[in-house]
Amino acid sequence: MPTWTEYIFYKKLGKAPSPGDVVEVVPDLVGFHDLTGYHVLEVLEQMGKVEVFDRGRVVVAFDHLAPPPTQRAAELQVYIRRHVKALGLPHFYDVGGGILHQIILEKYAMPEQVIFAADSHTNTAGAVGAFAQGLGATDIAAALKLGKTWLVVPTPFAVRVVGEFPKGVMGKDVALHLLGAFGAEGFNGYSVEVTVEKPKAFPMDDRATVANMSTEMGADALVFIPDEVTVAYLHEARGVSYKPPALGGGKYADEYTVELGRLEPLVAAPHSVDNVKAVAEVEGIEVDQVFIGSCTNGRLSDIEVAAKILRHGRVKARCIAIPASYDVFRRAMELGYVDVLTKAGCVVTYGTCGPCLGGHFGVAGPGEVVLTTSNRNFKGRVGHPDSKVYLANPAVAAATALTGRITDPRQYL
Amino acid sequence: MPTWTEYIFYKKLGKAPSPGDVVEVVPDLVGFHDLTGYHVLEVLEQMGKVEVFDRGRVVVAFDHLAPPPTQRAAELQVYIRRHVKALGLPHFYDVGGGILHQIILEKYAMPEQVIFAADSHTNTAGAVGAFAQGLGATDIAAALKLGKTWLVVPTPFAVRVVGEFPKGVMGKDVALHLLGAFGAEGFNGYSVEVTVEKPKAFPMDDRATVANMSTEMGADALVFIPDEVTVAYLHEARGVSYKPPALGGGKYADEYTVELGRLEPLVAAPHSVDNVKAVAEVEGIEVDQVFIGSCTNGRLSDIEVAAKILRHGRVKARCIAIPASYDVFRRAMELGYVDVLTKAGCVVTYGTCGPCLGGHFGVAGPGEVVLTTSNRNFKGRVGHPDSKVYLANPAVAAATALTGRITDPRQYL
Repeated sequence: MPTWTEYIFYKKLGKAPSPGDVVEVVPDLVGFHDLTGYHVLEVLEQMGKVEVFDRGRVVVAFDHLAPPPTQRAAELQVYIRRHVKALGLPHFYDVGGGILHQIILEKYAMPEQVIFAADSHTNTAGAVGAFAQGLGATDIAAALKLGKTWLVVPTPFAVRVVGEFPKGVMGKDVALHLLGAFGAEGFNGYSVEVTVEKPKAFPMDDRATVANMSTEMGADALVFIPDEVTVAYLHEARGVSYKPPALGGGKYADEYTVELGRLEPLVAAPHSVDNVKAVAEVEGIEVDQVFIGSCTNGRLSDIEVAAKILRHGRVKARCIAIPASYDVFRRAMELGYVDVLTKAGCVVTYGTCGPCLGGHFGVAGPGEVVLTTSNRNFKGRVGHPDSKVYLANPAVAAATALTGRITDPRQYL
Repeated sequence: MPTWTEYIFYKKLGKAPSPGDVVEVVPDLVGFHDLTGYHVLEVLEQMGKVEVFDRGRVVVAFDHLAPPPTQRAAELQVYIRRHVKALGLPHFYDVGGGILHQIILEKYAMPEQVIFAADSHTNTAGAVGAFAQGLGATDIAAALKLGKTWLVVPTPFAVRVVGEFPKGVMGKDVALHLLGAFGAEGFNGYSVEVTVEKPKAFPMDDRATVANMSTEMGADALVFIPDEVTVAYLHEARGVSYKPPALGGGKYADEYTVELGRLEPLVAAPHSVDNVKAVAEVEGIEVDQVFIGSCTNGRLSDIEVAAKILRHGRVKARCIAIPASYDVFRRAMELGYVDVLTKAGCVVTYGTCGPCLGGHFGVAGPGEVVLTTSNRNFKGRVGHPDSKVYLANPAVAAATALTGRITDPRQYL
C-alpha cells in the first residue's frame, strides 16, 4: 500500500515513482499573486504569447502589496489585471479578496490534488491533503503554458500527532516544535505526511498553519492525510462531498510523534525560525508591535482566540490584525470579533499579507521588537534589518499586545 | 464691531490689527504629523535643544504613512516617538489614532483659538470658529520653541450660506462650488468668514469639509462663525460649554452668498480643484478606484451616507473606505456602517490619510481613474502621474463605487 504522496503520484502518473525520480505532472491548480505575477506574465510574454493551458485551473490573488502602497506596486497590478482580463481568468481576486493561499484553501484545494503557485507558502493547501508546492515564477509560467511541470519525487516522512491541545497551544506550536526538533532545513527532500490520532482535536485552521510552515522546515510538501475533519471541512465550507481512500502500511523514511499534551506555547526568537523557546523563557520582553494575520495565522479560529483574549482590555503595544481573506473578515465581523479587536485598539483591515514580509501596513522600524503570527523571523523580514522578530501563535500575540510584553496567554483563556 | 477674524486677533493682541499687518501671536495649539514631524524635530535639534513652550498645547498624530508602508516611514516614526516620549507630550496619537486635523477638531479645537500645524489642511479647525492655518515645518519648529509665531493679518471676506441642502448635496459641494466660482487661488490673502442662515441645516461635518478645502481656495483661513450648531457640537462631542460673543457689523472686503437649494452634486475633474462640473456632466465615466475618507470627508456623516448608498449592493469599482479617526471608526462600527461597507466589498481600515496623497493603501496606477472624497486632484496626487482624479462628496463616491461609473447619488437616497 502506498503512502499518501505515493498515492497522489500514482493517480497522476498511472504508476508509482520512487523518491528521487524526476517526473512530469499535470497540475490541478496553478496560482500567482501580485508580486510574482509580474514575472510569471513577463516570462509568458517572452515565450511568445500570454496563454494558459486551462483558465479554470488558474487562481490569481492580489495580496502582498494590496491595496498598493507604491506607484510601482499599483503599476504591476494594472499590468496583471490587464492580462487577467485578456485571458478571461475566472478565479481572479483583486485587492481585498484575500491572501492567495487562504483563497486556494477555502475555495479550491481538494485532497489528492497537485497544486503549484509562485509563492513559497503554497504548501498551505496540504491541510486538506493536496500535494502543494511553491515554485519560482519561471516554472509557474512554464506550467501555465505547457499544462505540466517537472519535480523530484520527495521521500515520505511520517508525523503522528497524538493527544489534544492544552490551553493556549495551537497548530503554530506544532510547527514551531517541529522546527525546534528538526531545524530549518530538517525536512529538505521530504514530503511530510501527518496523521492525526484524534482528528477532531486538530481543526482545519491549525492544520493549515502547520502545512504553511513546512516551508520553514525545508519540506517539499506537508500533507495532512484526509480524515473525518477533512471530509467535514469540505462539506461545511464548500458543500463538496469527499470520501478518503483506505490507505495504510506505506513505507516512510522515518517517523516522528508529536504529543500535543506535552506542548506549551512557543516562540521562534530572532533571527531564525528554528530558534525555538518556550514563551516562559522570553516572557516579559518589551514589544513595540504585534501582528495577528498572514497565510500562517489569519484564519477564523486565529482571530477568534485573539478576540477572546483582547476582550480583557486595551492593547499596550501597537497591534495590527488582518484576517487573511474577505470571507474570514466577514465571518469575524458577523461574530463580533472585529468589534472586540478594534475596541481593544487593534488597527484592522483584511486580505493582505500586510507587515509579514515588511511590504506595507506596519513595516518595523530600527530597533523595534515585533511579535508576529506570521512565518519568518530572519533579519529584516518585517522591515528594518535592526528590528527583532518573534514568531508565535495568535493567543500569545493577543496576550502580548495586551500587556506590551511577551506574555503567556493561558492566564486569559 | 469687528469681524470674527478681527475679534480673534483683538483678543490675542489687545488691539485690532489691520489687514496686511505683520503680527506675532501665541498659538493655542500647535501640531505636526509623521511626515512633517521629522523636519520639525530636526529643526528643533539644529536650534540647540528639542523643547516646546507648552506641552499641553502640542498635538501629534501619525496619519500620513500609518501603519508605515516603508522602512523609511517606520524609521521616522521611531524617531518622532522617541522625542514625543522624551518631551512627555500628552496629546500624542500613534498609528491608528487618527488624522491630525480630525483629532484636533474632535478633541481640542475651540472657537476663538489660533491653531497652527505643519500641514496645509490645518484650517479644518475653522469649522468650530478657530483661526487655523498650516505652516511649514520650520515655522512650526520656531513656534514650538518660542511659543509664538508671526503672520500677515488676512483680509476678512464674508460668505453667507442660505437655504438647505438638497438631496445628495453636501459640504463638499459648497467647497467645490466656491472653487468653481473663485478659482484655486481665489481667496489668497483672505480670511473667509462663513455665516449660516439656518445653522441646523449645515452640520459640523459639512462645515469641516468646507473649512478643510479652503486650502485649495488659497485662503489664509476659513472660519464658520460660531452659532448654535457650534455650541451643540462642543457640548455633545466634548461636554464643553461655549457661549459665542455677540458680534456683527464688521467690515468685509466683499461678500458672497451660497444658495444651498441651487446646488447639485459636483465634481472637480482632472487635473485641477477648480475644474468644477456637475456630476451630470461627467456621469458614466468608468472608474477604477473610489476612496471614501481623508481629513476632508472621513467623518461620521460621510461614512453614514456612503453606507446608506452601499446598502444597495456590491461595489463594481475597487473601493477603499477609511474613517478619519479611531473614534469615527468605532462609532461607524457601532452604528453598523462598517458592516455595510465591508459587506458591499469596500476595503476598510481607519485613521490614516491612505491614498489621498498617494502615500499608501490604494496608490493609483498608470491610466487609472480614481474618484475620491479627498481634497486635491492635481496630476499624480493619488499616485501615478498618468492617473486621473475626480473629487466628489461621499454620496457621489459611494454611488460611483456601486456602479463602477461616475454616478449621481440621488437615485439611491
